[in-house]
Parts: sequence; C-alpha cells; structure tokens
Amino acid sequence: MARASRPAGLERLCVVLVATRNPLNIGAAARAMSNFGFATLRVVNPFDPSYREARSAVGASSVLESAEQFSSVADAVADCSLVIGTTAATRRDLQHRLYTLAAGAPLLRKSLASGRVALLFGSEKTGLRNEDLTHCHWLLRIPTRTQQPSMNIGQAVAICLYELVRSAAPAAKPEKQKPATAGETERISLLLFDLLKASGYLGRRPGITDLEKLRRLVRRMNLSAPDAATWQGILRKIAWKMETGNAPKS
Amino acid sequence: MARASRPAGLERLCVVLVATRNPLNIGAAARAMSNFGFATLRVVNPFDPSYREARSAVGASSVLESAEQFSSVADAVADCSLVIGTTAATRRDLQHRLYTLAAGAPLLRKSLASGRVALLFGSEKTGLRNEDLTHCHWLLRIPTRTQQPSMNIGQAVAICLYELVRSAAPAAKPEKQKPATAGETERISLLLFDLLKASGYLGRRPGITDLEKLRRLVRRMNLSAPDAATWQGILRKIAWKMETGNAPKS
Repeated sequence: MARASRPAGLERLCVVLVATRNPLNIGAAARAMSNFGFATLRVVNPFDPSYREARSAVGASSVLESAEQFSSVADAVADCSLVIGTTAATRRDLQHRLYTLAAGAPLLRKSLASGRVALLFGSEKTGLRNEDLTHCHWLLRIPTRTQQPSMNIGQAVAICLYELVRSAAPAAKPEKQKPATAGETERISLLLFDLLKASGYLGRRPGITDLEKLRRLVRRMNLSAPDAATWQGILRKIAWKMETGNAPKS
Repeated sequence: MARASRPAGLERLCVVLVATRNPLNIGAAARAMSNFGFATLRVVNPFDPSYREARSAVGASSVLESAEQFSSVADAVADCSLVIGTTAATRRDLQHRLYTLAAGAPLLRKSLASGRVALLFGSEKTGLRNEDLTHCHWLLRIPTRTQQPSMNIGQAVAICLYELVRSAAPAAKPEKQKPATAGETERISLLLFDLLKASGYLGRRPGITDLEKLRRLVRRMNLSAPDAATWQGILRKIAWKMETGNAPKS
C-alpha cells in the first residue's frame, strides 16, 4: 500500500480493547494493526497481563510494546474526540446510532482528519457492556449473519482496519498484455485447421466442421501477443512431427 | 445481514486452505465462514488432522464437520470454474494478474452467479507455492503494508469473506456460456502436455518448458465448458493420429 495514498490522520486511530480475556486475541489485534499500518493500541483491564508476549503478534512486537494500559474506558478515550463502539447488535435496547462498517468508516475517517478517534472492542464473552457504551458517540456493526453474529476479536479488528484503508488502496489495474493482432490469430487458425485436416478430425461431428467455426473458437481465446507466439510455436512443432513422424503412405 | 440482500450464488464459494499448519487457523477460518454465511470448506494436506476439533471454530462446528479433505490442489478445485489465489505479493515474479481485494471481489461475485469459485489460502510460513499458483486464474491481494504484508490466515479469510458480502450487490448476470471447470481445464493441460512431449516441443526455448507454464497458458484461454469439450476432442484426435500414424519404432 503506497503510503501517499493513505487518508490523512489514520495514525490518530486508537484501537481500544476492553476487558479482553485471551492474550492471543490482543496479539492478533496487534498483528492486524501492523498489517494495516496502525500503531496506537490501548488495553483496558486485560484479564491476563502476559499479553505483551503474545505469540500471535507476528511482526507486531513494537505495537504490543508501546501498548498503553488503562483501568477504565474513560481514561483510555480521554484524549479522543470521537469514540466508536463495535457491536454484534443482538440486543434490542441499543440507545446509539448504529452504522454498518461500510457506512460508518467514511465518518470515522473524516473525524480522523481533525482529532483522535477511539475504536472500542469488548470482551470475548460479553462484548462491550452498557457502561462502556455510555462513552461511545455511535456504534459500528460488521454485517455478520443474524444467527452467528459474534466474531473473534482479532478477526473483527482486522476487518475494521481493512475497511478504513480499503478505499485508500489504489485501484488495481492489472497490467494488460498486448493483444494478438488479427493476423496472428488468423495464422493460428490456419495452422490448427491444417492439423485438424491431417489428423482426420474434420470428419467428426459435432465439433469444428469448417474454418469459420475454428476461427471463432480461436478468437474466443482472446490471445495476448506473447501467447499467440507460443501457440504458433506449439502448433508448428506438432504439425512438423505429424508430417515427418508419419509412416510413408503405401 | 438480511438474506435477501446477499448477492446470488455466494453458497458456491469454496474456501480452500492449503497445507495449513496450525489447526486453530482452520478453526478460525471456519468461524469467519459461519459469521458471513459461507459453508464449503476444503482443506488440502493439513499438517494436523485434529483440526476438526479446533476450539477456535466458535459457532462453526458444522462448517468443520462438513469440511472436505483433499491430497492435492487439483482435486480440491476440480469442480470449480474459477480458481483464485490469495497472496501477500512480496515476490516480483508473479505470472498472474493481481487484483486488490476490493477490485477483485466484484469479478469473483460475478463468477459465482454461474459456477463454483475456489478461494485459496496458503500455509502460514510460505503462503501458496508456485505449484499451487499454477491452478489459479488470478490472484487477490489484501492491501497490507509493504513492510508487514503477511497476515494471519483466519484474519485474511475473514477480510475476504467480509468484502464479498460487504456491498449488497445486485445479483450479477450470469455469464453467457457456462465456464469450464478446473478439472476440464486440467485435462486439456495434460493432453496438450503429452502432445508437447511427443512432438519434441519441450526441448525448445523459449516457450513452454514445463507443465506449470502450460497450465497458465491454458488458464489464460478462459474456456467455456463447450469450448473445453471441443478442445479435448481436437487434442485427443491429434494425439491419436500422432501415435497411430507414426512409423513403428525400430
């Protein structure tokens, strides 16, 4: 990902993991942060203080080492101008505005241009508690199935961060190979037609019965110029072998 | 996620995990599949056969139980008409078209409207090997940082599946012709490879020097199912003629 194409201010995002039980999930979140270029990890009352050594944080030791630890959500988000909670939204009593991740991400990015934004993830079993949600301006939901809404924390973090950098990625324009010319395609059709005649294929039905049908078959290959050259080489060699290798007609 | 807004054919996606070492990663992939409503998991030569009991597959036991196990990528993708590899794309010598996930997902969804699509994920250490890539039509890349491109498998699977359901795209129009399956394409590659050997072509350079290059050449034909049948008939006939028409070896 070219650095220049990242939206401004992504470094102001704080990933806040609240009451996480499994240190491997903290490590996995750190790994995803490293993958997508986010550095600020904050943990609130982690269940297991050994998370800084989590083996799941492949390539993300610096994220874990610089992680800040807090004893309350209030402290963890104190310097943030926008606080967003993530939720599986299975509860009906949500008091907050709820956006899908795709709809909320642009709002989040916009706020990053002017200040720090906290993105909160709750514990494995309960998610964010009501008390945590009171610190949130609005909520984000990853569009999971209603029957199976609860995601692994590391996967949820990865998806949210992916969405934030997603639109910044340069549109991929695969390098198109130069297409074969009509003349090159025609030579392949004629070479193949000779092979079909020589092999006795043309008498068969159904299949290719004449040169026109064969031309259409070859056109549908949509050959690039290099591939057209390769096919000519292949067909010439096969034709040569068929001719010279054949027993003399009696 | 409202069922009605899902693009058509998502159930035709096959998540294929190749040579995965850690069974927890297979479980995590299954969990993400369950979160986003995908059911078909295929594993190729998993390092640890205990993956079916992976504790990481929270809410995804049915995905793991119905997972199919294969001993080769060719077998795992044989009934698929499109095969897509995922890559961190750190290597410079990629022979395939490479799309970012956001750019490739619409193409993938379009193909799902008319046939099965395999999405391949390589092992933790090496990713997909070159031999695995020869089965792929094109490659997908999640836009990670250049300095830290390698993702956890469970997180990579989750992000890809999220992207597929992300935009409730209207049902794609099925392609006019049913595309050839990977099995049909593979048969053509093998038939043609035998012809190249028999004709003495393989010693030539430059051109096709091995089966892997040949597979890529054939994949680039993007064959429809009817055209694949025609090509098989043509190649069989030429091979038969070359064999029976040749002078007996002295």
